[in-house]
Amino acid sequence: MKWVTAVRNNKTFIGIVKEEKVINLTALAESRDVKFPSTLIEAISLGESVFGQVETLIHSDSAENHTYELNEIQLKAPIPRPGKNVFCIGKNYRDHAIEMGSEADIPEDIMVFSKAPTSVVGHGDGIPNHSSVTSQLDYEGELAIIIGKTGTGIKKEEAMDHVFGYTIINDITARDLQQKHKQFLLGKSLNGTCPMGPWIVHHSEVPNPENLSIVTKVNGEVRQNGNTSDFIFDIPTMITELSKGMTLEAGDIIATGTPAGVGKGMKPPVFLKPRDVIEITIEGIGTLRNEIVE
Amino acid sequence: MKWVTAVRNNKTFIGIVKEEKVINLTALAESRDVKFPSTLIEAISLGESVFGQVETLIHSDSAENHTYELNEIQLKAPIPRPGKNVFCIGKNYRDHAIEMGSEADIPEDIMVFSKAPTSVVGHGDGIPNHSSVTSQLDYEGELAIIIGKTGTGIKKEEAMDHVFGYTIINDITARDLQQKHKQFLLGKSLNGTCPMGPWIVHHSEVPNPENLSIVTKVNGEVRQNGNTSDFIFDIPTMITELSKGMTLEAGDIIATGTPAGVGKGMKPPVFLKPRDVIEITIEGIGTLRNEIVE
Repeated sequence: MKWVTAVRNNKTFIGIVKEEKVINLTALAESRDVKFPSTLIEAISLGESVFGQVETLIHSDSAENHTYELNEIQLKAPIPRPGKNVFCIGKNYRDHAIEMGSEADIPEDIMVFSKAPTSVVGHGDGIPNHSSVTSQLDYEGELAIIIGKTGTGIKKEEAMDHVFGYTIINDITARDLQQKHKQFLLGKSLNGTCPMGPWIVHHSEVPNPENLSIVTKVNGEVRQNGNTSDFIFDIPTMITELSKGMTLEAGDIIATGTPAGVGKGMKPPVFLKPRDVIEITIEGIGTLRNEIVE
Repeated sequence: MKWVTAVRNNKTFIGIVKEEKVINLTALAESRDVKFPSTLIEAISLGESVFGQVETLIHSDSAENHTYELNEIQLKAPIPRPGKNVFCIGKNYRDHAIEMGSEADIPEDIMVFSKAPTSVVGHGDGIPNHSSVTSQLDYEGELAIIIGKTGTGIKKEEAMDHVFGYTIINDITARDLQQKHKQFLLGKSLNGTCPMGPWIVHHSEVPNPENLSIVTKVNGEVRQNGNTSDFIFDIPTMITELSKGMTLEAGDIIATGTPAGVGKGMKPPVFLKPRDVIEITIEGIGTLRNEIVE
């Protein structure tokens, strides 16, 4: 099941994508006078019970009246306003760690930083180039995990039970700010620098999240061509490490790190400029497309 | 005006402290059938207009019925669940930067990291010692700024207009995790490691936030004895730097850094253990007291 947050006729709704069509669950539930969560965070927090509710709704008589073509709606980030900063794993692919410095940059322990919730935008939204603040805007294509079940001290063997699903994040980074401020937060949190989407794919449709091709193109040119099988810290390790003494909550988002091929790693480095189009495609998830704007 | 979030008879309310007594604004508004925000973030977001509402409420006939002694209520963190991670300024006092390493650690550019919202607790709450995760739990007494007016690209000369008020934060840190994971987030975000309070003091009662004595005691022994006049980056600079391309929102919290005297800086280092009591007193704000628990 692919979950979306989207807008139609100025109304934000949550829905699912089925056979290339979007079913508006918010409107469908309203039309049937059924109580249904109004955000994906709420829906995810309901746990497995939400799937029964969705099945009932989409098989009801009135479902057709609330089904649209994808081009009739505007996608937002599936979680447009996370309840806390987005967790990000730093340098989680060997070749990327090396291109950012040297072999010495390959982490021995997991590195975690965050992006402010105000940085989140959706598929198709423009990414401001922030020319007054940075001259080194760079892309990072990443698989993102959406936590489905709250937990603390989660064991590795139970970690996958805490995953609701997956989406794509472009961890846009101002390299100059990242370097200058040492801690990454400011270089990672400019408005519009966390494109997320196009949707959340439920884990049941992603049987092997650690063997997914991940390709980032800039203006059609392949820049990153990696595979999540190259994670240094795998998904159970990420969840275990993050939840050691810190509660991971339903709706939390973990961006899993980026493979080699970022603009800063090119010789000479090439940074993003207005009208550049970045497309990140992850096998089994979809394509997240955004353009840099003035 | 001192703003609190507190609990009485299992009901959470927001209120103000006046002449050592707490006026329960939530119950008072309910009793008069007046619409009033239910959280401090909402109240702060209303801007100046909230003060008129409060004045009307506290001068109404029924105010006395909703006024308690401080020992009749239980304080929570004034903002028990921030809408995003708490921003923290790293190494913002020269002597603390030096005790953490050397002169080379004095930052040339502002350093910003964050604490997860799940780490927030109130005055009087126990701080878990997390012995399975860390053996180097340390305190950091800090003045915290509460943003009152949302803004992006805020100019220095307008920065103070964006401050709602001030509180105290104990930026409890797992030194071993902070060092091991390089980026500070994990070492700064264990559950219960962001004690905040006891209240938010409105800026009108803190005419000179950059000349406040800040004293941290552990079991009655003075460990930190600093003054906010020693900030490397002053409050307008913090607000300007954070809001460069990143929107600062009403209710956002900025912990301004800690003076010298942390446990890690002692020779040999001394870390926190169960039953240690940490009291942070900031001139004109109050005292934040918490005990380490097993």
